[in-house]
Amino acid sequence: MTGPPTAGTRPDEVRRHNRTALLRRLHVGGPCTRAELAAELGLNRSTIKALVDGLAEGGLVVEQVSAKRLGAGRPSLLVLPQPRALWVLAVDVGVEQTTVAAVGFGGEVLGSRTWTLSRGASSVQDVVGKVALAARRLADRLGGSPVGAGVSVPGVVRRDGYVHEAPNLHWTGVHLGELLSTALRRPVLVGNDAELGALAEHTRGVARQAADMVFVSVDVGVGGGVISERAAVRGTGGSVGELGHMVVRPGGRSCYCGCRGCWETEVGEDALCRALSLPEGSARELVVSELRSLGEQPELALYRLREFTDWLALGLINVVNLLGPELVVLGDLLAELPPVIVDEVAEEVRQRSLVSRAVGGIRITTSSLGPEAKIIGAAELAFEQAL
Amino acid sequence: MTGPPTAGTRPDEVRRHNRTALLRRLHVGGPCTRAELAAELGLNRSTIKALVDGLAEGGLVVEQVSAKRLGAGRPSLLVLPQPRALWVLAVDVGVEQTTVAAVGFGGEVLGSRTWTLSRGASSVQDVVGKVALAARRLADRLGGSPVGAGVSVPGVVRRDGYVHEAPNLHWTGVHLGELLSTALRRPVLVGNDAELGALAEHTRGVARQAADMVFVSVDVGVGGGVISERAAVRGTGGSVGELGHMVVRPGGRSCYCGCRGCWETEVGEDALCRALSLPEGSARELVVSELRSLGEQPELALYRLREFTDWLALGLINVVNLLGPELVVLGDLLAELPPVIVDEVAEEVRQRSLVSRAVGGIRITTSSLGPEAKIIGAAELAFEQAL
Repeated sequence: MTGPPTAGTRPDEVRRHNRTALLRRLHVGGPCTRAELAAELGLNRSTIKALVDGLAEGGLVVEQVSAKRLGAGRPSLLVLPQPRALWVLAVDVGVEQTTVAAVGFGGEVLGSRTWTLSRGASSVQDVVGKVALAARRLADRLGGSPVGAGVSVPGVVRRDGYVHEAPNLHWTGVHLGELLSTALRRPVLVGNDAELGALAEHTRGVARQAADMVFVSVDVGVGGGVISERAAVRGTGGSVGELGHMVVRPGGRSCYCGCRGCWETEVGEDALCRALSLPEGSARELVVSELRSLGEQPELALYRLREFTDWLALGLINVVNLLGPELVVLGDLLAELPPVIVDEVAEEVRQRSLVSRAVGGIRITTSSLGPEAKIIGAAELAFEQAL
Repeated sequence: MTGPPTAGTRPDEVRRHNRTALLRRLHVGGPCTRAELAAELGLNRSTIKALVDGLAEGGLVVEQVSAKRLGAGRPSLLVLPQPRALWVLAVDVGVEQTTVAAVGFGGEVLGSRTWTLSRGASSVQDVVGKVALAARRLADRLGGSPVGAGVSVPGVVRRDGYVHEAPNLHWTGVHLGELLSTALRRPVLVGNDAELGALAEHTRGVARQAADMVFVSVDVGVGGGVISERAAVRGTGGSVGELGHMVVRPGGRSCYCGCRGCWETEVGEDALCRALSLPEGSARELVVSELRSLGEQPELALYRLREFTDWLALGLINVVNLLGPELVVLGDLLAELPPVIVDEVAEEVRQRSLVSRAVGGIRITTSSLGPEAKIIGAAELAFEQAL
């Protein structure tokens, strides 16, 4: 509850507000005409013209005659975001591999570098050094420098990059954000991997229309990202959505977290390997190719993945009953599940979740962005600050 | 993303904004001096004077010489909210009893009526009729009429009062809000009982300082209310927080929701009765008096409530790992647990929840408002709109 702004700052504020709205519209929605911008943003044409002219002068957009135009009259000009004029670094720190990408204004990936790690054996210093190197190479190639960086970490992490705990990386209490922003000399924002998956699906994926959604990520670990009324729910210290450590089978398998029967022990990557009769820790490609071949044999898929399917459904019933999403997006390895399994799980949840039955229409679907979701989300985090 | 307000409406908007901020400050924080209001709201003294004078003319506040004043100088005037000048109806529709209260500006309960129901046997029409009658009686006594009404319902319910499902009341798809607003001829806002318990604890109870909190309510059913960054999380159709239907014991007791081993079957009122060797469905007073006498015998309490304590801790570990609160408030019957049990549960969660270990400092405590929480929350819901 602060006082009103003084009258003098008002026009500046309005201009800045409008410019940000315009940049976000172009970044998320892609090219469109000035008339569309005016209609969507509720601004008059002269205001739009002044804003677009300003952005064009700065090289952030160019205007081009729309190819789609057919009828008579003056050709309508499309306003096109220029990806190289404003770009960010997006970093996905994974358990098995880390990726650094340059993502331009408008969302285009301009370049990326990926390296493989041995599971959970990377020190923070090692990751920071490699990210900084990759960033320099990308900057050399693109001939500019990023306006900021967004980072995805599989763990409980604050926005400023203090990692409380990233169990599968064996990191506890390390300030990744501080180290990275020093190395990159850029502002760095950090999020949990599933949180950024949710952000990506909500901004550019299957969840664009969903006000309340949960992204469930099954990688080595199992995590969740929660969006409520179109905004990220973070919890204290960024701790929302540690779905993997929901106990669903008391007395079940030991989890490194100290509990027994965590959901991760039943639906994590190792559990999926067991269900597929592969050794735990098998290469990701092998797991994915096995899942894809099962996708062509629905009956066999249902038979072999029976127990996995039951545990997946049970955990999702809990997720829906606790978090009340209208849409659940299954990401990472879950996006590779045979469609018949996804249908089966969705039907189980529809029938057995009190919330799903009560409210109706709650949907479960697979990610449209696949393994890219985290890096896209990391980029969006950086753009949220940069724009 | 809408356009800026036109310049002409601005001064009105500022005045309205300031008036609302002032009213909320007085309503929530209670009496204070003009100087304190100016400091807290960041407004100058003449603005505060004009606002307070306006409210005093309307009878909403009076100014009184502060009794606390000791030193020299002009006596400072306290601004006191006048409860009868602006009051709302607060309704708590319970499974075993329903309460209607008149709550005044500032939070004082001006009067209330409660009636007992046989468990789950009330039709919506019956409840609406009785609430309307109680409202008329309260209005007659207070000599005015309420500016709005807030209603607490134990179920999945939309803000406008459409009850998707209130299982323990056996209500499905009834529009309580529409019926009540017609009967009361007043705007009616409706929330889930645990959601409103959370709102009450956050506004006037133990959670005033907590940005992220979960209220866990154990009554006949088990529910949860979630506050994230000081705002209620609602979920689609108001469905967040159906904690009672989190499956924690696959293959366990049958729950009316269709699942087996729901948390409610292990920590709901019936489970508590079993733990206390009382018949299921025993009178609330008996359960509470048994818990209070156990409170004086900590060792016996730990022994007799061993299993109940374990299931309570397990569910709370899941709640903390999924929702990431900094504070969990145990409400309703849980507020009556012997302190030794609450300590035991808190210690279990501290040690075994990944989120609690990672972030640190997550607290579990009992409600300070007790069974009043729902009615206070219902009143706050009405005041949020009225002020």
